[in-house]
Amino acid sequence: MSGEFNLIEKYFVDQQAQRSDVVLAAGDDCALVSAPVGSLIAISTDTLVAGTHFLASANPRWVAHKALASNISDLAAMGATPAWVSFALTMPEIDEIWLAPFCEGFFALADQYGLQLIGGDTTKGPLSLTLTVQGLVPQGEALLRSGAQVGDGIYVTGLLGDSQAGLDVILDKSNATKPFASELEKRHYLSTPRTQVGEALRGIASAAIDISDGVISDLGHILKRSGVGAQVEVEQLPLSQPLLEFVGSSPQAQQYALTSGEEYELCFTVPDSREDAMWQALQDIDCQITRIGTINDDDKLRLTLDGQDLAWQLSGYDHFKTN
Amino acid sequence: MSGEFNLIEKYFVDQQAQRSDVVLAAGDDCALVSAPVGSLIAISTDTLVAGTHFLASANPRWVAHKALASNISDLAAMGATPAWVSFALTMPEIDEIWLAPFCEGFFALADQYGLQLIGGDTTKGPLSLTLTVQGLVPQGEALLRSGAQVGDGIYVTGLLGDSQAGLDVILDKSNATKPFASELEKRHYLSTPRTQVGEALRGIASAAIDISDGVISDLGHILKRSGVGAQVEVEQLPLSQPLLEFVGSSPQAQQYALTSGEEYELCFTVPDSREDAMWQALQDIDCQITRIGTINDDDKLRLTLDGQDLAWQLSGYDHFKTN
Repeated sequence: MSGEFNLIEKYFVDQQAQRSDVVLAAGDDCALVSAPVGSLIAISTDTLVAGTHFLASANPRWVAHKALASNISDLAAMGATPAWVSFALTMPEIDEIWLAPFCEGFFALADQYGLQLIGGDTTKGPLSLTLTVQGLVPQGEALLRSGAQVGDGIYVTGLLGDSQAGLDVILDKSNATKPFASELEKRHYLSTPRTQVGEALRGIASAAIDISDGVISDLGHILKRSGVGAQVEVEQLPLSQPLLEFVGSSPQAQQYALTSGEEYELCFTVPDSREDAMWQALQDIDCQITRIGTINDDDKLRLTLDGQDLAWQLSGYDHFKTN
Repeated sequence: MSGEFNLIEKYFVDQQAQRSDVVLAAGDDCALVSAPVGSLIAISTDTLVAGTHFLASANPRWVAHKALASNISDLAAMGATPAWVSFALTMPEIDEIWLAPFCEGFFALADQYGLQLIGGDTTKGPLSLTLTVQGLVPQGEALLRSGAQVGDGIYVTGLLGDSQAGLDVILDKSNATKPFASELEKRHYLSTPRTQVGEALRGIASAAIDISDGVISDLGHILKRSGVGAQVEVEQLPLSQPLLEFVGSSPQAQQYALTSGEEYELCFTVPDSREDAMWQALQDIDCQITRIGTINDDDKLRLTLDGQDLAWQLSGYDHFKTN
């Protein structure tokens, strides 16, 4: 950990147990790590900017969770096991009232996922965070976006739509009186990255992605990379009771589920021939799995409700666009 | 490469030849790379914020060079060979006039050092860049800060002080009429990371660091981590003719050389027993190497001029502190 704010070292250095593959974590020009023979290293970088991805006034513990969870989720989507994280924090001035809970949230989640902070940078400027996470996946077993085949089932983890509803509350306080408003706001920040599911799907799923821009947008990436189409059965979308009560109708909740970003759930495809293996691999993991559709040879993503085509015009998830 | 600005993909994706150890570079949730058996991975992250580390009005090609060079320099200081870089760019809006030359500068330097861009994120917000570079170093051969021993010679690469003089020009245009002002401004941005020197020093140098905060400050890190002291012979500091003419006197130039940060030269220590091996290892590398002092068993860093102690009170390098 280097940077302009040496005080920050007290919050970030030596807060975790050392992983056996970390030779050097802090205090030199670089960290040094080793990857096991036969593994590939999966690497993802994400930036969160105050005002764009979170409000500067947000609970710092939640901001830390969201920043780290969004990165871990990228590892989950590759079937990678979390290993190391580098962290760059830019803030206008040292604010210990903000830093202490931020670091609590950060290390709580990092420890839970076996992720060790190996270094970073702290600089002066407008509040933002950039994390680079690295994970390990056996050679040839990474889950890619490009492997979906005609006939594969399309599945998602967890529940969809809550993150958008939470964002509604964050951006417009008049929504705070709606049912489950504070619960949904919390869900927006506190997602659960699905690394266990991703690891279990190695050798089983034909394609996977995490839901950061809305499931139709993210599934669209799988379709494009795989050169296939899809039918999504909207009545199958897994919706929470709080979402249904918050938005007030099933169609509205379904539309939320289709476009809600920053869910950090997985969307993946599995051939029918491996469906039994899938359910077996996932049986001990505490995570709802729902089949929402089927890959086909169309050139587009088709939405149906009880077998009838839907002509919904849905706009993509655009983070804090109203800011 | 993900992010809000999809247009940016056109500048960043598929601009380089694929390294053989890069399995997947862009277009999925993570990049996938493999490290050779017997190697450690050296990782460093640095953020540059407009207004703190560069002026928003600076030549974008130079900004790209500075950002990447400062990161590559951290690899050099570990004796690591550059391999992969992840890149997070935050900017207020897409500015192609800025991006095109920025990318030219970025890829020119990346290609020169064999560094492949493997992914990143592009977000909306105040202008800043965070780079995470990764390099490879044979197990047990990384250069650390902690190995300096009493009696070791202290060496630096290149010339010292020019970066500070360049910063003087950038921050105070009244300096622009001084000799070599524009040449020194350019040198501030366009440093040469010393990876060849770092690689050659594997198994030879007892400690190394790159000069980002001024040589006395950075050498201080070696002393602290190694539990030793040092004498630096100020008359030995390698000074450029432009610096001498810009500041007007040798003592002033020496003070610049001692405190100038963002030089991205290496400072390293070598036992006398390995001095011959050092000169032999470095003989084919086009880089000036200068012995500037000796490690001793003091508890501090002592500056001498022709054998006499100096009582200079020097302040550390503080980036764009006047901004």
